[in-house]
Amino acid sequence: MSHPPLSQTVVKEFQEILGKDNVFTEEADLACYAYDAAVVEPVMPALVVRPTESEKLGRCIKLCNDNGLPLTVRGAGTNLSGGTVPTSTKGVVILSNAMNRILEINEADMYAVVQPGVVTAKFAAAVEAKGLFYPPDPGSQAVSTLGGNVAENAGGLRGLKYGVTSDYVMGVNFFDVNGEIVKSGSKTVKCATGYNLSSLMIGSEGTLGVFNEITLKIIPAPAHRKAMMAVFDRMDKASETVAAIIANRIIPCTLEFMDNFTIRAVESFSKAGLPTDAAAMLLIEVDGYPAQVEEDAQKVEDICKKMGAASIRVAKDDAERDKVWAARRSALSALAKLKPTLVLEDATVPRSKIPEMVQAMQDIAKKYNITIGTFGHAGDGNLHPTILTDKRNKEEWHRVEKAIEDIFDKALSMGGTLSGEHGTGIAKSGFLHRETGKATIAWSRRIKSALDPNNILNPGKVIGG
Amino acid sequence: MSHPPLSQTVVKEFQEILGKDNVFTEEADLACYAYDAAVVEPVMPALVVRPTESEKLGRCIKLCNDNGLPLTVRGAGTNLSGGTVPTSTKGVVILSNAMNRILEINEADMYAVVQPGVVTAKFAAAVEAKGLFYPPDPGSQAVSTLGGNVAENAGGLRGLKYGVTSDYVMGVNFFDVNGEIVKSGSKTVKCATGYNLSSLMIGSEGTLGVFNEITLKIIPAPAHRKAMMAVFDRMDKASETVAAIIANRIIPCTLEFMDNFTIRAVESFSKAGLPTDAAAMLLIEVDGYPAQVEEDAQKVEDICKKMGAASIRVAKDDAERDKVWAARRSALSALAKLKPTLVLEDATVPRSKIPEMVQAMQDIAKKYNITIGTFGHAGDGNLHPTILTDKRNKEEWHRVEKAIEDIFDKALSMGGTLSGEHGTGIAKSGFLHRETGKATIAWSRRIKSALDPNNILNPGKVIGG
Repeated sequence: MSHPPLSQTVVKEFQEILGKDNVFTEEADLACYAYDAAVVEPVMPALVVRPTESEKLGRCIKLCNDNGLPLTVRGAGTNLSGGTVPTSTKGVVILSNAMNRILEINEADMYAVVQPGVVTAKFAAAVEAKGLFYPPDPGSQAVSTLGGNVAENAGGLRGLKYGVTSDYVMGVNFFDVNGEIVKSGSKTVKCATGYNLSSLMIGSEGTLGVFNEITLKIIPAPAHRKAMMAVFDRMDKASETVAAIIANRIIPCTLEFMDNFTIRAVESFSKAGLPTDAAAMLLIEVDGYPAQVEEDAQKVEDICKKMGAASIRVAKDDAERDKVWAARRSALSALAKLKPTLVLEDATVPRSKIPEMVQAMQDIAKKYNITIGTFGHAGDGNLHPTILTDKRNKEEWHRVEKAIEDIFDKALSMGGTLSGEHGTGIAKSGFLHRETGKATIAWSRRIKSALDPNNILNPGKVIGG
Repeated sequence: MSHPPLSQTVVKEFQEILGKDNVFTEEADLACYAYDAAVVEPVMPALVVRPTESEKLGRCIKLCNDNGLPLTVRGAGTNLSGGTVPTSTKGVVILSNAMNRILEINEADMYAVVQPGVVTAKFAAAVEAKGLFYPPDPGSQAVSTLGGNVAENAGGLRGLKYGVTSDYVMGVNFFDVNGEIVKSGSKTVKCATGYNLSSLMIGSEGTLGVFNEITLKIIPAPAHRKAMMAVFDRMDKASETVAAIIANRIIPCTLEFMDNFTIRAVESFSKAGLPTDAAAMLLIEVDGYPAQVEEDAQKVEDICKKMGAASIRVAKDDAERDKVWAARRSALSALAKLKPTLVLEDATVPRSKIPEMVQAMQDIAKKYNITIGTFGHAGDGNLHPTILTDKRNKEEWHRVEKAIEDIFDKALSMGGTLSGEHGTGIAKSGFLHRETGKATIAWSRRIKSALDPNNILNPGKVIGG
């Protein structure tokens, strides 16, 4: 991971813009930014910089473009598809964490304006303090940044009822590759002015521009909520219950699945009192108007029983509820402790196909003789089959790669998609054509080349090339 | 409006693809497609063609591109910003109305796949027949097409609670300028694969590609609803009531405003029993879980009273409700009968600014001595100031143009947008830079040039040029 030193003139120019304290050139510093949460080869950047304000960020981007330096913006690096891993040792990593101000929370018009480096959970808490609600809650919300969430179109546990990050972006302004401000969307709830550039930017993983400010929709907080845990002695009973709940047109806020392997890992990590002998369990929360919550909760309970749940436990208070959700949120960390390499997939299928997809995961694990723990947002059709392996074991890794291909193919054959919420990054860009066809990639690349002719904006991500 | 005849070879090629019955060259036919519902100069196309299936549509687009013929796709032509008016007498209008099949309504996974020519209300009815709900309801829904709705990102009366067309598009596939299929989005509720090209296509008014199939989200129908009419003896009381309802964090399904001028026009047209002596009225509907509907309706009623409503009438049944909504939907037609020229604006402001915006409309009408009737989606901050005039009266038209500029400037000064739901088209493209700045237009044009190098896809719309 050694790298060619960057021209001292360029380093000096960065220092002039940002001050010496915000420009990092030491190998020990650079090494921290060579990877993210995805299983992809680390690449050490040549330079890491930390703009503290808007105007300086714009100048950094222009400086990169003028010198042909590839740049990757990094929030908290929790990305699961390699979106924040540099692809070139000549690259510059731009940290967004010093641009972390909530600029406005407008209660009357229910929107907020934030800088990209604001931590998701911190923002959610600030909004909650005003009796309002920002629903997107990616698993990594305690550290992830809003800029990263928007760049990856992050999902979360509440996607089923409340949607994902893109459903809450009203507008963005961002720097183009020349360091000029581009603006799209509005503080109004409706906007049909100009091209919908905000939405193009959402999920574009830093390949088209760099966020400066983001306007987010916030909503009234639900008045009431009820969480429950349904335990099953067979996986298929649990997955069919998911389909049955949706078929009955109940839209819980959250409808999560966990198989026995994941339950045991999580319990050993979190000591939350999960049923370690269960074949699978569902974690369900309904929220909204109090009487409706009670009615929906009862309906969900009835469906679980009818589908053969061995037991159902309703959280008796917020403390019990929070404990179970904290346990669920620890799933990734809990599984990661078990083996040196963890591959977290998020191929997604239409919701009614969840039983078939759960079965397919078991078949694929068996076929390649590998360990797959399955958990995730079953109500969204968005499972996280998690492969535990050791990448240094080349023979096993080869089987894992084959298994991943099978997972993708299976999801696509059911009308699904490669990624529900983790993004394409570099981990999936090579598979994109299987889902979209080659003309789509060609069309996307035409956009990319037009907007970033020197290919310096997070090159290689999403559409490869 | 005469035009250079198109090369007979090209006409023949269209006829070979589509059959003679679907290629129109007679002036009487062409004249029907020279205009839409916006106040812009009519331009007669050189040719009108009607593809009946996907593959033929793709070939037509390629043929246009190969011959440098500008093409404009037309649904029902209800557009209010000139999006469906040709900009060149060499142009080809492609009718989408023969591609009008609902390809799938999937109840289990709550999505539908449609061709672009499906009429909005017909689709809504087909979905309703299955106990499901497609909320976007533009004023012109009885004739407008889904393809047109998506191309313009149409809004409607239920935007406040349910959002606009873009909130219901899960994916699209479309022809690029070479007639190749590009695909984006999914039948899954979450999709983070590749660029979000669907959203870029939404509202791009046919300038980037031509829709082939659209996948739409549908949702469970609300169990209950309640509509009411609140009458006010002063405009400001009505507009302040709108702000107060939102400030109390009640989100009605619909919250419409009508001033006295509009009420009288609509009543004379529809005989729905509207209070013609009211200074203004609000039409409000709440829907959802029955007990919540009752509670919200009561709260709304209390707020209206507190804010000084002269009377409140709750619709006693669906028939009474439907009559009032039909009257509201007739506003545009009712106003259009009064004068030769009607300019329907839709500059939109953050919701709390509605009182200020209503006042501004009155001031502007006075300043330029013109007639402005104001109605619209007050709950969205999306009023429709409607200027009644006669374009042939040049002196008055000049004042009208000045007034429109003032309306735009006023909305922008309040953090608003030029268009909430009618699109940019040619009517507003000249004003775009005031909202977005020049770098945004430059960035947008880079996209357009990359995707449509011969500038044949509905040239001149959205971003001008």
